[in-house]
Parts: sequence; C-alpha cells; structure tokens
Amino acid sequence: MQKNRLEAFSDGVIAIIITIMVLELKVPHGTDLATLKPLLPVFLSYVLSFIYVGIYWNNHHHLLHATHKVDGKILWANLHLLFWLSLFPFATGWMGENHFTATPTAMYGFVLLMAAIAYYLLQCAIIAQEGRSSLLAQAVGRDWKGKLSPLLYLTAVGLSFVRPWLGSAIYVLVALLWLIPDQRIEQTLTQHEQKS
Amino acid sequence: MQKNRLEAFSDGVIAIIITIMVLELKVPHGTDLATLKPLLPVFLSYVLSFIYVGIYWNNHHHLLHATHKVDGKILWANLHLLFWLSLFPFATGWMGENHFTATPTAMYGFVLLMAAIAYYLLQCAIIAQEGRSSLLAQAVGRDWKGKLSPLLYLTAVGLSFVRPWLGSAIYVLVALLWLIPDQRIEQTLTQHEQKS
Amino acid sequence: MQKNRLEAFSDGVIAIIITIMVLELKVPHGTDLATLKPLLPVFLSYVLSFIYVGIYWNNHHHLLHATHKVDGKILWANLHLLFWLSLFPFATGWMGENHFTATPTAMYGFVLLMAAIAYYLLQCAIIAQEGRSSLLAQAVGRDWKGKLSPLLYLTAVGLSFVRPWLGSAIYVLVALLWLIPDQRIEQTLTQHEQKS
Amino acid sequence: MQKNRLEAFSDGVIAIIITIMVLELKVPHGTDLATLKPLLPVFLSYVLSFIYVGIYWNNHHHLLHATHKVDGKILWANLHLLFWLSLFPFATGWMGENHFTATPTAMYGFVLLMAAIAYYLLQCAIIAQEGRSSLLAQAVGRDWKGKLSPLLYLTAVGLSFVRPWLGSAIYVLVALLWLIPDQRIEQTLTQHEQKS
Repeated sequence: MQKNRLEAFSDGVIAIIITIMVLELKVPHGTDLATLKPLLPVFLSYVLSFIYVGIYWNNHHHLLHATHKVDGKILWANLHLLFWLSLFPFATGWMGENHFTATPTAMYGFVLLMAAIAYYLLQCAIIAQEGRSSLLAQAVGRDWKGKLSPLLYLTAVGLSFVRPWLGSAIYVLVALLWLIPDQRIEQTLTQHEQKS
Repeated sequence: MQKNRLEAFSDGVIAIIITIMVLELKVPHGTDLATLKPLLPVFLSYVLSFIYVGIYWNNHHHLLHATHKVDGKILWANLHLLFWLSLFPFATGWMGENHFTATPTAMYGFVLLMAAIAYYLLQCAIIAQEGRSSLLAQAVGRDWKGKLSPLLYLTAVGLSFVRPWLGSAIYVLVALLWLIPDQRIEQTLTQHEQKS
Repeated sequence: MQKNRLEAFSDGVIAIIITIMVLELKVPHGTDLATLKPLLPVFLSYVLSFIYVGIYWNNHHHLLHATHKVDGKILWANLHLLFWLSLFPFATGWMGENHFTATPTAMYGFVLLMAAIAYYLLQCAIIAQEGRSSLLAQAVGRDWKGKLSPLLYLTAVGLSFVRPWLGSAIYVLVALLWLIPDQRIEQTLTQHEQKS
Repeated sequence: MQKNRLEAFSDGVIAIIITIMVLELKVPHGTDLATLKPLLPVFLSYVLSFIYVGIYWNNHHHLLHATHKVDGKILWANLHLLFWLSLFPFATGWMGENHFTATPTAMYGFVLLMAAIAYYLLQCAIIAQEGRSSLLAQAVGRDWKGKLSPLLYLTAVGLSFVRPWLGSAIYVLVALLWLIPDQRIEQTLTQHEQKS
C-alpha cells in the first residue's frame, strides 16, 4: 500500500522530467531543414538524457519490486534521488545549447554523478530496511556497474575540461553499459519465485 | 504488478505529452477575435495531434490489456515508443506555426512514421514474450491498419514537398482510419472471455 | 481494470491542466507589492478556473464510480471532455491578462460551454452502456444543474459583449452552484449500498 | 477505492508542482561557471521548496493512510491544500530571482502559512469524518508542530521586512523541524497494527 504510492509518485515525477526535457527543443522560426541544424546538439543531448532517465526508471522499478516495506529513510532517500533527476532537464539544456562545450559537459557529468550517489543511498536505505540477508542484498551482490559508474562520471567530469567530446563519449558509454536492465536482481528474483 | 507500473508510467508520459502540446497555443496580446486568427493553424494542428495521441493511448491500452508479463525488451520498446510520442509537441508546433508549409508538414509525417514503427516493434516484443499462438498474435492477425499506416505516412512525407495540403490531408485520413478502436483485439478478447 | 486506467489517465491529464494554469502567473521583475497588482486579474481567473477544474474532477470521479464497463465510445467521449478541459489554461490566461474584457470573457464562457456539452455526452455514453434502468440513469434523473449550466454559459457569452463583468459574475455563480458535489449520485449510490 | 483516486490525483498534482519549479532555473546563455552564479539564489530557493513539497507529500501520505472514507468536504479541503501548494513555484521563483529581498521573502512565508492552514483544515475534515475517537484523532493528539509552524511563518513574514535573511532562516528551521516524518501518526498506527 505505502509502497504503491511511493512508486506512483516517483513514476509521476520521472514521467514529467522525461517529458519537460523536450521543452528545451524550442520550435524554430524558419521553415526549412537548415533551421533544424542548430537544434541537432540539443536533440542529441535530449536523446542521451531520455535514455538515462529511462535507465533510472527501469532500475528504480526493479529496486522497488524487491522492497517490501517503506520507512521514512526510504521516502527521503527516494525524494533525494528525484531531486537530482529533476536537474536533468537543466543540465541537458545547458549542455545541448552550448554544443557540448567544456563546463556544461562537466556539469552534466556532475548531475549524473549526484544521481548515481543518490541511487546508491536509496539502495542502502532499502537494504537496511530489508536486512543484510534479504533477496535484494544478495541480488546487488558485487554491484560492479553501480561502483564503476561514479568513477567513470568523475573521470568524464575531469576529461571534459581537456577534451569535451571525451566527457560526452564516456556518458554514452555508461548509458550503453546500463541499457541492459539489472539482470542480477531480475535473475535472483526469478530464481526465488521458481523455488517458492 | 510489473505491468501495472509500465501502464501507469506510460499513462503519465502520454498525459503530459497531450497536455503540454497546448502550451504551443500561446495567449495572444490583443483582445478581439482577430488576434485569434493567426492561432487557427496552431489550433488545428493541436486538434490533429490530440487525436493521434488519443489513438496511441487507446491502442496502447488494448495492447497491454492483452499482455501478461513484462520483460526488459518490452520495457525498452515501450520507452522507444514514448520517445517518438514525446516529439509530437515539437512537430505539432513547427507545423502549426508555419501554417502547414512543406518541410514542417513532412517532418510531422516523419515523427508519425517513427512512432508507428516504434508501436510495431512494441507489438513484436510483446508477441515474442506471449508466444506465437497467444491471444494477441491471433488478434493482430492480418494487421492491415498497422501495415498501411506507415506506407501512407511515407507517401504523405513525399507529397508534402509537392503539395503540402496533400500531406496534411493524408494525416487526417489515417487519423480517421484509426479513430475506430482496434476492434480485432477487442473482439478476440471478448470471444475469449465468453468462452472461458 | 480497463476503468482504472481510464481514471488514472484522466487524473493525470486533469492534474497537469490544473497545474500548468499557474504558469500563466508569470514571476514579475520588481520586488515590491505594487508589481503584483497587474497580476491580480490573472490570479483571480486562475482561482476561478482552479475551482472549475476541481468541480470537473469531482463530478468525473462520481460519474466513473457509477460506471462498470468501459467501451470505445466512453473512451472517446472522455478524451473529448479532456480536450476541452485542456483549453482552460489558454482561455484562463487570455481572460486574465486582458482584465476580463469582452471577447476573452466570452471565449472563456465558450470553452466552459463546450466542456459542459462534452461532459453531458460522456454521461450519455456511460448511460447507453450501463442501461436506462441503471443506477446512474436513475441518479442523474432530473439533471437540472447539467441542463441549467449550458444555458447560463450561453447567456454569459452574450452578456460579455454588453457588460463583461456580468459574464464573469455568471461564471462565478455557476461555479458556486456546482461546488456542492453531485449529491444525487452520491445519495443514490449510498442508498444502493445500504440496501445490498 | 474513492480514497485511491484522491491519492492518485494528489500525487499527480504534487509531482507536477515539484517538477515545474525547476523550470524557474532557466538555462543560462554563457558557458562558464560564472554564468551559473546569478542562478545560485534561484537554486537555493528551489532546494528549499523541493524539501517543503516533499514534506507535504510525506505528511499527506500519512494523513490519508489513516483515512478510511472520503466525503465531499475532504475532497474540497484537499483541493484547497493543492491550490496553495500550486502557488509554490510562483513564490519560489519570485523569492529566488530577487535574491531573498523583503517582500518576496514575506510572500513566500504567506504561501507557506496558507498551505499550513489548508493542511490543518484537511486534517480537521478527516477527523470530522473519522470521529473524535479515531486513530487519527489520537495520533495528531498534541499537534505541537502543526500549531507552532503557522506562528513561525507569521513571525518570518514580519521579520522579512526587518531583516529578510531572518525570514529565510526561519523557513529553513521549520523545514528541518518537519523533515522528521510525522512519527506520532506512524507510531500510533504501528501500535494499532501490532495489537490487531
């Protein structure tokens, strides 16, 4: 019951975030294809962020699927994650409108980094509630993707000031890494369901 | 359970898309009816897109009604569909503000085409999960509307550069074609429910 | 099941409509109370529209509570209602920013009128599905409010061109009339639930 | 059933409010960190309002968890609360863009005050429905936070005209006070669940 409402609220916020990002793609005044050309970097950054928000929604989905009870700590850890996700439209717009230049690209990585940390804290809050021996604790097990991503974001933030395109390339790489849904959780859950 | 959240999230995104399209209808500065006149094409393109999004919501509804389990492929096929739907406000605004001129009209058709392909891929992903002999596989059967629409969109994109109004006319035609809810699925499901 | 998703989608659209109306209340550039003064008519029209959307949500809630099955006609009658409700932010902004002058006030009434007709059509579609002898058909019975409101809106549209404040006064009056939730449906349902 | 839809609608509205506040954080035109500096007060006021909306969502959640039946009074008391919450983006934007000067800071406190009163009225409407001896009536018991907050908001509104930073400091203080979820309700409910 409580969990359902947490999911519904998170779905609402994530649905709005993913949709208002498109508002940065402002309708141009000209009528030929050339007027769309300056919109290309904005469009590409929109695609990237859409995939990232999709990944977060997907993993959030799996994470809460493995959660049984929601307490105050989980509620706030979840709001903390939503806060950083809510900055995606801003970071996306700034990076896109400035054609992937250094500082905006680094800032984009910073927001990705903070969202990753917030997701990690939410995972911790849920494991603390569910217990060390819970299904979820086993499922995340050796969470190499969760541990590698922040390091890659940090590297990308640094590299953005040297070669901005390297920063963006790493963001694309991490997105591809995560595009595969969190099969560890899915598999452990499936195994568990087959046993019971 | 998993399916419910997919529906809820899709409903959220579609609800936002259908509503932010109206933001392109900017409040004019004058106070007489004449100031509304330049808004007429924007309004007409809004009506057309509202109907299209309504059709997608309607068919999405039937499609998921016939789905029993959601896997990673379905999740991403669904997000892919939502991505192209999220470009409707942009395409609508561009076509409306430029009074249905050639390139924006063709672009609108392109977005419709991509959404149609994305819907088809989602259908495939669901049938792959449900099985070739599933209710849904039977229901879509000879999916003439699903196969005809992309061809008509393609034709409309081409014709937009010759006579833009022909492109728009085809969009209206396809919308009318789909306005009738997907009765094949509905009928097969009803027959199935009556049997069981 | 089908009904739940119709409710969820309508709730989503109505929630967005009621919230994006506030975006017309643009943050002023000055810092003293005097800079808020020109916003007063925009604020008042926002309050009025907020109440109207609240009334629609409320009655929509009662209407669907008395509905058992959803067919294609109901789906489209519902989307038709949402379409006219989606024009509330536009009509509200135009009336508010032009300080309740003639044409914008009349236009506001026109949108109210169309929404009222759309609501009536939705009611008819539901009664057609539920049957003449259904609970809902009895409940709406002598629907004096539903019949009176369109007449009052029409009068207000006409009077707006004579004395704009008269138009607005009628909108306030009708809102007050409806603020009382649809007790006929509520009572009939309560009686029914007590019997069974 | 009825309660679920009230929760879903409130979740939708609150999710939109919390997300459109970020639209005030407009994408700057420059590309270095210095262009972000003028956005800092807008960002800080966004953080503060995000926390406040989070608190309201959290408490609303607990409040409705303890509610069993929804009547017309509760529906409208809830819409009244949502109305004041919907003014948060405006009040936040005005305070942030004017760097926490006197009148905008006082106005922010006024909106907080009205939302607090609206929340109190909703609580009263629910207790009136649930009965004086209900679980909720016991749970809110000596509602010192609910009684103290409006007084603090009033003080902050007054102090904003003397020292604007004092007003803001009090808003931060009250937010910290509420960050701890309403454990009285949670505890009483937990005790009750353990008994039964």
